[in-house]
Amino acid sequence: MVRILVLHGPNLNLLGSREPEIYGRETLAEIDERLRAAAEAAGATVESRQSNHEGVLIDALHEARDTADAVLINPGAFTHSSYALRDAIAAVGLPTVEVHLSNIHAREPFRSQSLIAPVCVGQISGFGAESYLLGLQALLSRLGAERGGS
Amino acid sequence: MVRILVLHGPNLNLLGSREPEIYGRETLAEIDERLRAAAEAAGATVESRQSNHEGVLIDALHEARDTADAVLINPGAFTHSSYALRDAIAAVGLPTVEVHLSNIHAREPFRSQSLIAPVCVGQISGFGAESYLLGLQALLSRLGAERGGS
Amino acid sequence: MVRILVLHGPNLNLLGSREPEIYGRETLAEIDERLRAAAEAAGATVESRQSNHEGVLIDALHEARDTADAVLINPGAFTHSSYALRDAIAAVGLPTVEVHLSNIHAREPFRSQSLIAPVCVGQISGFGAESYLLGLQALLSRLGAERGGS
Amino acid sequence: MVRILVLHGPNLNLLGSREPEIYGRETLAEIDERLRAAAEAAGATVESRQSNHEGVLIDALHEARDTADAVLINPGAFTHSSYALRDAIAAVGLPTVEVHLSNIHAREPFRSQSLIAPVCVGQISGFGAESYLLGLQALLSRLGAERGGS
Amino acid sequence: MVRILVLHGPNLNLLGSREPEIYGRETLAEIDERLRAAAEAAGATVESRQSNHEGVLIDALHEARDTADAVLINPGAFTHSSYALRDAIAAVGLPTVEVHLSNIHAREPFRSQSLIAPVCVGQISGFGAESYLLGLQALLSRLGAERGGS
Amino acid sequence: MVRILVLHGPNLNLLGSREPEIYGRETLAEIDERLRAAAEAAGATVESRQSNHEGVLIDALHEARDTADAVLINPGAFTHSSYALRDAIAAVGLPTVEVHLSNIHAREPFRSQSLIAPVCVGQISGFGAESYLLGLQALLSRLGAERGGS
Amino acid sequence: MVRILVLHGPNLNLLGSREPEIYGRETLAEIDERLRAAAEAAGATVESRQSNHEGVLIDALHEARDTADAVLINPGAFTHSSYALRDAIAAVGLPTVEVHLSNIHAREPFRSQSLIAPVCVGQISGFGAESYLLGLQALLSRLGAERGGS
Amino acid sequence: MVRILVLHGPNLNLLGSREPEIYGRETLAEIDERLRAAAEAAGATVESRQSNHEGVLIDALHEARDTADAVLINPGAFTHSSYALRDAIAAVGLPTVEVHLSNIHAREPFRSQSLIAPVCVGQISGFGAESYLLGLQALLSRLGAERGGS
Amino acid sequence: MVRILVLHGPNLNLLGSREPEIYGRETLAEIDERLRAAAEAAGATVESRQSNHEGVLIDALHEARDTADAVLINPGAFTHSSYALRDAIAAVGLPTVEVHLSNIHAREPFRSQSLIAPVCVGQISGFGAESYLLGLQALLSRLGAERGGS
Amino acid sequence: MVRILVLHGPNLNLLGSREPEIYGRETLAEIDERLRAAAEAAGATVESRQSNHEGVLIDALHEARDTADAVLINPGAFTHSSYALRDAIAAVGLPTVEVHLSNIHAREPFRSQSLIAPVCVGQISGFGAESYLLGLQALLSRLGAERGGS
Amino acid sequence: MVRILVLHGPNLNLLGSREPEIYGRETLAEIDERLRAAAEAAGATVESRQSNHEGVLIDALHEARDTADAVLINPGAFTHSSYALRDAIAAVGLPTVEVHLSNIHAREPFRSQSLIAPVCVGQISGFGAESYLLGLQALLSRLGAERGGS
Amino acid sequence: MVRILVLHGPNLNLLGSREPEIYGRETLAEIDERLRAAAEAAGATVESRQSNHEGVLIDALHEARDTADAVLINPGAFTHSSYALRDAIAAVGLPTVEVHLSNIHAREPFRSQSLIAPVCVGQISGFGAESYLLGLQALLSRLGAERGGS
Repeated sequence: MVRILVLHGPNLNLLGSREPEIYGRETLAEIDERLRAAAEAAGATVESRQSNHEGVLIDALHEARDTADAVLINPGAFTHSSYALRDAIAAVGLPTVEVHLSNIHAREPFRSQSLIAPVCVGQISGFGAESYLLGLQALLSRLGAERGGS
Repeated sequence: MVRILVLHGPNLNLLGSREPEIYGRETLAEIDERLRAAAEAAGATVESRQSNHEGVLIDALHEARDTADAVLINPGAFTHSSYALRDAIAAVGLPTVEVHLSNIHAREPFRSQSLIAPVCVGQISGFGAESYLLGLQALLSRLGAERGGS
Repeated sequence: MVRILVLHGPNLNLLGSREPEIYGRETLAEIDERLRAAAEAAGATVESRQSNHEGVLIDALHEARDTADAVLINPGAFTHSSYALRDAIAAVGLPTVEVHLSNIHAREPFRSQSLIAPVCVGQISGFGAESYLLGLQALLSRLGAERGGS
Repeated sequence: MVRILVLHGPNLNLLGSREPEIYGRETLAEIDERLRAAAEAAGATVESRQSNHEGVLIDALHEARDTADAVLINPGAFTHSSYALRDAIAAVGLPTVEVHLSNIHAREPFRSQSLIAPVCVGQISGFGAESYLLGLQALLSRLGAERGGS
Repeated sequence: MVRILVLHGPNLNLLGSREPEIYGRETLAEIDERLRAAAEAAGATVESRQSNHEGVLIDALHEARDTADAVLINPGAFTHSSYALRDAIAAVGLPTVEVHLSNIHAREPFRSQSLIAPVCVGQISGFGAESYLLGLQALLSRLGAERGGS
Repeated sequence: MVRILVLHGPNLNLLGSREPEIYGRETLAEIDERLRAAAEAAGATVESRQSNHEGVLIDALHEARDTADAVLINPGAFTHSSYALRDAIAAVGLPTVEVHLSNIHAREPFRSQSLIAPVCVGQISGFGAESYLLGLQALLSRLGAERGGS
Repeated sequence: MVRILVLHGPNLNLLGSREPEIYGRETLAEIDERLRAAAEAAGATVESRQSNHEGVLIDALHEARDTADAVLINPGAFTHSSYALRDAIAAVGLPTVEVHLSNIHAREPFRSQSLIAPVCVGQISGFGAESYLLGLQALLSRLGAERGGS
Repeated sequence: MVRILVLHGPNLNLLGSREPEIYGRETLAEIDERLRAAAEAAGATVESRQSNHEGVLIDALHEARDTADAVLINPGAFTHSSYALRDAIAAVGLPTVEVHLSNIHAREPFRSQSLIAPVCVGQISGFGAESYLLGLQALLSRLGAERGGS
Repeated sequence: MVRILVLHGPNLNLLGSREPEIYGRETLAEIDERLRAAAEAAGATVESRQSNHEGVLIDALHEARDTADAVLINPGAFTHSSYALRDAIAAVGLPTVEVHLSNIHAREPFRSQSLIAPVCVGQISGFGAESYLLGLQALLSRLGAERGGS
Repeated sequence: MVRILVLHGPNLNLLGSREPEIYGRETLAEIDERLRAAAEAAGATVESRQSNHEGVLIDALHEARDTADAVLINPGAFTHSSYALRDAIAAVGLPTVEVHLSNIHAREPFRSQSLIAPVCVGQISGFGAESYLLGLQALLSRLGAERGGS
Repeated sequence: MVRILVLHGPNLNLLGSREPEIYGRETLAEIDERLRAAAEAAGATVESRQSNHEGVLIDALHEARDTADAVLINPGAFTHSSYALRDAIAAVGLPTVEVHLSNIHAREPFRSQSLIAPVCVGQISGFGAESYLLGLQALLSRLGAERGGS
Repeated sequence: MVRILVLHGPNLNLLGSREPEIYGRETLAEIDERLRAAAEAAGATVESRQSNHEGVLIDALHEARDTADAVLINPGAFTHSSYALRDAIAAVGLPTVEVHLSNIHAREPFRSQSLIAPVCVGQISGFGAESYLLGLQALLSRLGAERGGS
């Protein structure tokens, strides 16, 4: 059974209650529940973690080597500043997809550059909570393809 | 019934036969067929066009005002050079999703900057032909949400 | 009789129906009619063409060597990307005036730089449809001055 | 009756006697006279001032709040260095048109950037003394349009 | 009663014992005591926290939504690197003032740019421990003004 | 008795009547009166001058060597363009505090860089008229501290 | 028999009649005839096409996969703006040589950078019509060497 | 007896098991053991810590003021992003040597710039685990030299 | 008899009393006297003016068309900001030499760039008051050479 | 009889034995012999020199004023660093062609910029030893053309 | 027996007598003697050369192909300007270590960038003469490791 | 008796015969003779050397420690590329003046930046051969002033 680690970066715990015009009204718990349901429907499991601490996210990535087959990550503002997170993803070597709620290419200039994307399979940005579900689907397709016809 | 215009930019007609290590082995016709099937399953229609001519793509976008509800576009190399395409998307005003086969954020530096993304709903990059299907799904979700509970 | 070629670049065919807060409510046909009337009043003729294809605009400039005495051009988004259009103007050698509906110096940073202006007589920007009429007048004054006292 | 303040920036008092290959042979007095005549023909008045002192130009702009309906300004070299002039125009709030004798987009690189243009209605550059007359006309059209059919 | 959260960023716990020629001889405890006294005199309360962990500061900001009316922050070196802190301040939405002991505009070039200031009410820099007291006063004035005559 | 010279740069004479959403509704005279009262309460005097002329501000700084103990300056737009003002402050050698009504770090990019701040004691920005009062207080604290226990 | 496709980019159709001080007095037809003769002497064939349309050049490159063994291209101004042409050359995979009439490294700064050269065998610039003949020879030598001793 | 604090930054705990082509096959425990042995042979002691948390590394540096005579640090990816770590080293004031396993000057451009090196004694990069041993030796030589003949 | 206009820019009136470690201890009056004596010895006259007002310096340059044969100018901080002064020198057309007391190429980065030098005969920097005397001599040599054998 | 000086810059003496995947397997002696033969066939002579010393190459260029009619130069790495070589070519004034074995536009970014090319007739890059022969031919054509019909 | 070539770049012959606060008081002869002794103790030999001529250093590197097993180089100021030295090291292919006496990352900005380091095994900077000894040791360890257990 | 070393950099040996419109018609021998005469008149001696070899100039500077009291240098194109020359001047520590025949601030952009000037007393540029004589005079004045009243 495919295991997906979902990582939410800094400030995403506030989702739903703040700046809904940018990030939408859904809470993180609701998104996690939708991911869980979608994964279950596809015969996969999802484990979700959120942290405002870069180190906690890196530790979680390291642990995922033994407990997950792929990673879905919304690095939040660490997207633009954390070479350490980038190195963690590269070192762990699991297929990783980067997602963003808002369209980072349509906001302040600094937001369009991701330090993380170059070590990921791909990037999905701009679809609100749907970005996560698309990212999950992309990972499941990829893992399915790798495992062949079963 | 929701109508989606799919636009493929320059050199995508060669898909499948060239540089498969970057762009995959699927042909454009196969991708279009998968999009058609997926749209049909969701009660939508898809019309696909490919051109190596920036002007043809712009003309197609203009026509879409009367014939489509949303646009799925892989602008190819025009992503990095065509302010005219950007203005066309902004002027036409249909919800538009930008997709890329390869992870443009992990290649030559010039490829990570999109002139198009700032006027799109969002951007999906790095999942091969799957990028198109994810983009289609994102558009359908969005249009469905806008149309409400029906 | 002085002959002026008027060239409208990409997306200008949509004028009047889209983004009127930026570009105004007048259609391109109305602008062309105002230019025709103003030219006629000054004993000149105007021929107008619009295209979303860079190549068509270049071809039209080349033909103008035999059919026009001066060029009035709104290059649209090609202003910021087309060295080929610049070279065409320089090669054709007719006095050319660049006009813009909106004030390109007050919008996104990329819009303030024109690749075209260095090979033109001058640039007029920010006066809506009036920009074209001012540009026409500038060309007629210049051509009149060159032809002397007649 | 519409009142236009015309402001000439530094070194423009030398017009006609110096560097005629760039700036033409007409003197500033002659330009002011042509502006006066053109304004009168349109039922408007013009008051002209020239100064090599940035502060004098700013003071004149401030006074214009009570004595003028619009401003026509050739900021000369202050175009490229005076944020104070820019702020003055924004603070005064009168519709302002920036004009230049030479084509500033075809000279040294520093000349193509205007600190002033972003707070103006528009910019006209490259037509010699004619630039002023076109600018006057643009202002009169605009003020006429605002006042409507009366 | 107005409640102010005071946040001290990395290395500020060393205050008083290190590099006094740059940062002064007062300890952080002494500054906090002065802030407490000044707040009390104005009928307000102050809660102070220091951390070398970006995540701890972000967590503290999140908690402040329920426990504080405004924030006084010296982000230390995070001023120049932490988009996550910036997003936290924007998300929490409390009026926030950024202070610095030294004049950050007179040191190494990287120190003059603050990622934090654009989401704050204002910035005070260069007055040693006095910067904090001025920032407190600025917040109290602002909150008082908002609450009006009561 | 401590003497403070207060210098207001270009366009600040318009305060209160223009762009109140950025600069507030208080007039410069009202600010000066508040400064005078606050200084008097602290046993100090204030002399205020405003000019739109860079040279007048420099001359006033030079004279201050004999007539003032410190300087409080809002350089307005000269903040971003006047190396001459910077050199004047450095040459005169009086402790100088730079203040701004608006948060210059949260507006156009050019406004966040101050040519003046590197030669000042510190910078205060974003608190409206309160910025001046905080700056006055900072200067008085500093001068008091220098004079010791009296 | 070796087949060479010769592609001439925008404005090269004007050759000989315009700006001869930069581009020489020979017409494109004369150059093509010289190339044809030189190719024939070497037992090769040449097919020449010129277009001002980027899309036409890309289409021609795509067709060349079946009809040519190598490409000789003067991309004209597309050299500096067309990532699509670059991608077409890379996708088609035929050995390609880039030539320029003028020395692009001795003109305006933008002309010294070629987006095309990184995917070509090499670049020849500065020898007028001779650049084409040298490029033809370079391609024939290379193809001859690859085919070995025959 | 000389006491050295060895600090390993983010992701270095994975050493030996991941990306051995870049970082080598030795584990962090093995490196620490080699450092311990080398220090012991020189009559010194070594205490090693690794963390993926910037704040933990800063805390450790602060504690080192009382428990170490010098610091050997491989800041990992914090090398390129952590001004806070830089300030901590400067504030603590112990002689510090920066080491890197790989040659950071021969990898991605961002890796060649160290924010940390300017406050260190020196930098050693490119020798795998040997970099640590060379750094230890450099510190011991330096401390020995400072203590003189005793 | 050769007439030289000597212009001293902003803050130079403070010479001798401020920052002598950078600018020396000689007063401006003493420098002017030395210039007068040196000019007299060479059969020339010198007229000296100092102003902190850019406009006054420009006015003086304009007047010099009738009253001087050459200009010796120390633009002070206007060196780095005043395009208007540059244009004035170019417009007036008198041979002009730029001098600086300190070595502007060995101070803050902004000081090494002169906006003025490109329109001067040459630049002399770094020799204290001697810079003026060398500049005077350079002008006299040049004027003498131009006047030939007399 | 036309005399060509061939100059080989630093490290080219190692040709054939090192990095053949970049520079090919032919030795410099073999290239020189091919050039000699080609020149002889065209009734010209070739003199070849190689040096790793910039000064020796400059001296050789100076001597060429009396002993050569044109120069063929592969400046090696001096292409990117030697303004002195550039000035030497400009000063000597002989027609000079720059050649490179590898395609310098397809390697590290610093290699695509030539300080030398702006003072040369043209540049040929990417054809291995053939680059030299093409350059020789270009020079002979040019010299032949200049000498006219003989 | 392992043979090490030690190369000292420009100005290092002055070591010990000049700027000892930056470079230390040891002479180059003393450093060479320490290197010789250290090498001898490890069963290796050292040959040292110093030159102020880039070409001499390149020639020495070329000769080292036959006479040395590794290179220890302090390129002095050539570190920042000599692409030719870089190419020489790459072409010769011997393992090379770059050393610096001072911490080049803590001085003028231009010194922190090395053109040489990308083609070296590693870089050691900041330990005075000790840098050379550490570099020697690094080379010996590496060569020993390559030669296996003997 | 004061001894001045005069150093002429690359290509200056060609003076008088090449590009006289930039560098004048005087030969280097004539300049040296004028310097010799001027020095003799002032009771000083001059020794002149020219080289196209950077290393020779550095060697000459090193020798000057024993044989000269000051240096007058025209570094030619090394001005813009030679950090080694800069370091040599700094290391030797003799007062050095940089001179240029042409006004380097009025030519190609790269020429206005001197790597040498920051370690010199001052820079003189733009006066032809006169630049050398002014530089000599500046050195003699300085040395005279240092030696006091004798």
